[in-house]
Amino acid sequence: MTKINGIAASSGIAIAKAYQLVTPDLSFEDKSAGQADEEIKRLEEALDISKGELEKIKAHTKEALGDEHAEIFSAHLLILNDPELITPMKDKIRNESVTAEAALDSITKMFVDMFENMENEYMRERAADIKDVTKRVMAHLLGVTFPDPALIDEEVVIIAQDLTPSDTAQLNQFVKGFATDIGGRTSHSAIMARSLEIPAIVGTKEITNSVKQGDMIIIDGLAGEVIVNPTDEEIGAYRQKQADFAKQQEEWGKLKDEPTFSKDGEQVELAANIGTPADVEGVLNNGGEGVGLYRTEFLYMGKSELPSEDEQFEAYKSVLEQMNGKPVVVRTLDVGGDKEINYLDMPKELNPFLGFRAIRFCLENEDVFRPQLRALLRSSAYGNLKIMFPMIATLEEFRQAKGLLMEEKEALVADGVKVSDDIEVGIMVEIPSTAVTARQFAKEVDFFSIGTNDLIQYTMAADRMNEQVSYLYQPYHPAILNLVNNVIEAAHKEGKWVGMCGEMAGDPIAIPILLGLGLDEFSMSATSILPARTQIRDLSKKDLAAYKDKLLSMDTAEEVEAFIKEKTE
Amino acid sequence: MTKINGIAASSGIAIAKAYQLVTPDLSFEDKSAGQADEEIKRLEEALDISKGELEKIKAHTKEALGDEHAEIFSAHLLILNDPELITPMKDKIRNESVTAEAALDSITKMFVDMFENMENEYMRERAADIKDVTKRVMAHLLGVTFPDPALIDEEVVIIAQDLTPSDTAQLNQFVKGFATDIGGRTSHSAIMARSLEIPAIVGTKEITNSVKQGDMIIIDGLAGEVIVNPTDEEIGAYRQKQADFAKQQEEWGKLKDEPTFSKDGEQVELAANIGTPADVEGVLNNGGEGVGLYRTEFLYMGKSELPSEDEQFEAYKSVLEQMNGKPVVVRTLDVGGDKEINYLDMPKELNPFLGFRAIRFCLENEDVFRPQLRALLRSSAYGNLKIMFPMIATLEEFRQAKGLLMEEKEALVADGVKVSDDIEVGIMVEIPSTAVTARQFAKEVDFFSIGTNDLIQYTMAADRMNEQVSYLYQPYHPAILNLVNNVIEAAHKEGKWVGMCGEMAGDPIAIPILLGLGLDEFSMSATSILPARTQIRDLSKKDLAAYKDKLLSMDTAEEVEAFIKEKTE
Repeated sequence: MTKINGIAASSGIAIAKAYQLVTPDLSFEDKSAGQADEEIKRLEEALDISKGELEKIKAHTKEALGDEHAEIFSAHLLILNDPELITPMKDKIRNESVTAEAALDSITKMFVDMFENMENEYMRERAADIKDVTKRVMAHLLGVTFPDPALIDEEVVIIAQDLTPSDTAQLNQFVKGFATDIGGRTSHSAIMARSLEIPAIVGTKEITNSVKQGDMIIIDGLAGEVIVNPTDEEIGAYRQKQADFAKQQEEWGKLKDEPTFSKDGEQVELAANIGTPADVEGVLNNGGEGVGLYRTEFLYMGKSELPSEDEQFEAYKSVLEQMNGKPVVVRTLDVGGDKEINYLDMPKELNPFLGFRAIRFCLENEDVFRPQLRALLRSSAYGNLKIMFPMIATLEEFRQAKGLLMEEKEALVADGVKVSDDIEVGIMVEIPSTAVTARQFAKEVDFFSIGTNDLIQYTMAADRMNEQVSYLYQPYHPAILNLVNNVIEAAHKEGKWVGMCGEMAGDPIAIPILLGLGLDEFSMSATSILPARTQIRDLSKKDLAAYKDKLLSMDTAEEVEAFIKEKTE
Repeated sequence: MTKINGIAASSGIAIAKAYQLVTPDLSFEDKSAGQADEEIKRLEEALDISKGELEKIKAHTKEALGDEHAEIFSAHLLILNDPELITPMKDKIRNESVTAEAALDSITKMFVDMFENMENEYMRERAADIKDVTKRVMAHLLGVTFPDPALIDEEVVIIAQDLTPSDTAQLNQFVKGFATDIGGRTSHSAIMARSLEIPAIVGTKEITNSVKQGDMIIIDGLAGEVIVNPTDEEIGAYRQKQADFAKQQEEWGKLKDEPTFSKDGEQVELAANIGTPADVEGVLNNGGEGVGLYRTEFLYMGKSELPSEDEQFEAYKSVLEQMNGKPVVVRTLDVGGDKEINYLDMPKELNPFLGFRAIRFCLENEDVFRPQLRALLRSSAYGNLKIMFPMIATLEEFRQAKGLLMEEKEALVADGVKVSDDIEVGIMVEIPSTAVTARQFAKEVDFFSIGTNDLIQYTMAADRMNEQVSYLYQPYHPAILNLVNNVIEAAHKEGKWVGMCGEMAGDPIAIPILLGLGLDEFSMSATSILPARTQIRDLSKKDLAAYKDKLLSMDTAEEVEAFIKEKTE
């Protein structure tokens, strides 16, 4: 057996055969063609098989993960049915006596080049779709297998360089876990693994080189290890570990309907981060006391136009009703940065993370922002809604955003629409300026939610997606702790509450620190809630609070981590 | 007359004819060619004229601004002398009976395409050079004028969309000022204008559309206005304003050799930011008490390989000797972000401002960093050297950088090289984490210098080069003031001094705030020093210090600005 270390992205143990998710070699020989009719027939067959597969994948995905996830395959089907793309291929076969492979390749490249050079972001995305879907057709022409995670029908663990959003959109119940070469705890694939509740190891650097299709694999999401081709004895040991973990989960499960108290009787709230109404079930199953962050971007993504106000209203209402009076913090649209939305035609930027994002975009585009505010206000009658604005850097921005909300509220009330009278309005604290001036903000907002993913990257001036500086993404850095503390002190002075909805809130090292600093609400991946509740029951808030000054004046993140580990072990 | 408002980038009044710096229309008719020999001769003539001009520009630039600025024209000459580029043009004329214009255009495009698609950044830069220099040849073929700011030989003010570094490299003594459509106070062109001591207005949005070649223009760098086609009376009034300003400059000049004291007798130091040894003359002429920031990047830019240790040593020594015992703060190499250096082969990044920059790069590339440290240490025997590391985010980075410096120092001393024994070693404070944990840093560094340009952009999470979010670049934002105050308090508690070397240090609104917060050293464009000294002599540090708490708890930058204006008017 071989043991490969990586970053534990989602806990649990998976034992199954490896499924290598790699694009096969699609190069073809430049040979002279046979009969044109024969080649055209080959092309048509490859197209038909591809379309059949896409229909199947689309249906699978729709059933397993909902309409939104399936939409990408509708786009792919449209492309393969488009005569403007297919007819020139056949013409080329007929007029230039080339093979189906050569015709497919050259016509595809022509369209891709054309679209890629267009100014319009939407057309450039089409180029990516064409490239993607014609790979499948080429694979069928060449008779090589094209991997389709959606069609997996026996238990596997996926081995891949990385999993893209379109890959994870296809994962079904047969996928027991995965391991990737790249990524970190906050990368898309890691977040998806926690949301799907399957064990995952990311950032192994070398897993795709060390595993063959069909190798026996153990993913140990507790230790952050992948075991390749274990002995029977080892498999036995890991089955035991798996059973122990299941038992622990059962233990955790007993706390599902309990409130969260520290050992010394201080209460905090454990909430979940969600992306769609379908995620609420997982929140409730995992004992979530609320939704601390509802990311509304998914409503806007993978579409060709803005979601209507009614469509949004239905989504928000669904989440509020399912949560049945428990608090739901909805974050208004956070586009830009690494989240592009084709039809919004956002500018290309040199530094998108420092660019025209989130509230900055919304305040300039009221035609996008106001319908969301109206949908939110209308939904407020159905539960305990709190509205949160992202990327607030100045008080002026908050005042302007809240002003628009109040305008829409008055208009709705005047029209006789029922709107809740006690909607709390707060902000994400993810920009250093806001953390530093929390005292000024605390007088005007109803609550803060600290978004550590961005706050850390701006405070350290290091793009967390950039491998060369990701070592500077240090959640325990004393600067981060000082800013978090500043926000909590400022809020409590004004009688306001503070949550945290970044990855840090669910991290077992950070939890004792944050409890000691006085954080009120911890919002995390649903599956982290019960372990967190278990952990907090063993922690004394008073003891931890006594370390505050010491932690805030430490020199390095390393020192903080070592200290907390020693004090809480 | 028409009055156009913009951003006052450099003070003073200029009155002269407009020189429109725009690339002429270089489109040509697709007509059939005459005799091939005739066309080849036309091409050769256009090449010869172009080369003659480039030689002349190169000589002008070298004389006016030094070898480094002239290097770009050597590169252009090499291109026009390259048979690999020119022979195919002639072949095309001969074999395909096309015009010289068509041959130049198509062969150029072929090479540009080829180079632009190369992975290598250096080759992509070559593509830009080829594009640039062949425009000149095309202009001569078409008989249209190609603007050459270096060849201007009568008094003008330049009107342009923007001035690129290669444009400003050519400005000579006949250019009395300029006005541009785009840019802000911290853009390249604005900084150059202050360094050249000519009035400039940037960010007018519309100046190129409102001015014709030869229009009479007044650039009022005091009011931030451009006056187009003034009446004789208006010209008279502005000549008076110009004379008044000259008189004021004379007044300022009297303070050239004076120290800087506030009205209540508190001393501060006014230093200058420089880029090359040639800038020192301007520092001394403008009464600089030191160099607060020597940007060493210029030594590395516009070259094909690293500067040698000796080359660096000579530059540092020259600055130290010219400054004759006055303090000189040298910043070690700050590459990356918007400062690319071809031969260093730095990675392409999604968010370069949050990327692999400055000390991050140097600590990973000791072969680049150690020679600079050695050159600095050797130069320390010739004056009052202070060494400063840029982009420090963690104490570990500072310790590592200082460790390398100490290693090199020991090695030099062991070799019998003379090294000063009291070199102060400090850091730039330009990353929020460092400003927040200044108290930890203050125990280990000898001084801080606050780099506001970056500190503001990271604190507000807004790329200052990005027009859509540049409104968030707010130097007076209470968050910035709180961070600056935190740094100053932390430093003074440990008996260390704090400087500022961002644009903010020379800003008349910021100066009273910074004086009140207790800043020790203000480093600015040389031409801002005497106005600043004059201003500070009228300010009471004690009175300003009394506003500190009020300023730090204000809500918005606007409020801060209004308050300071009221209190200091």
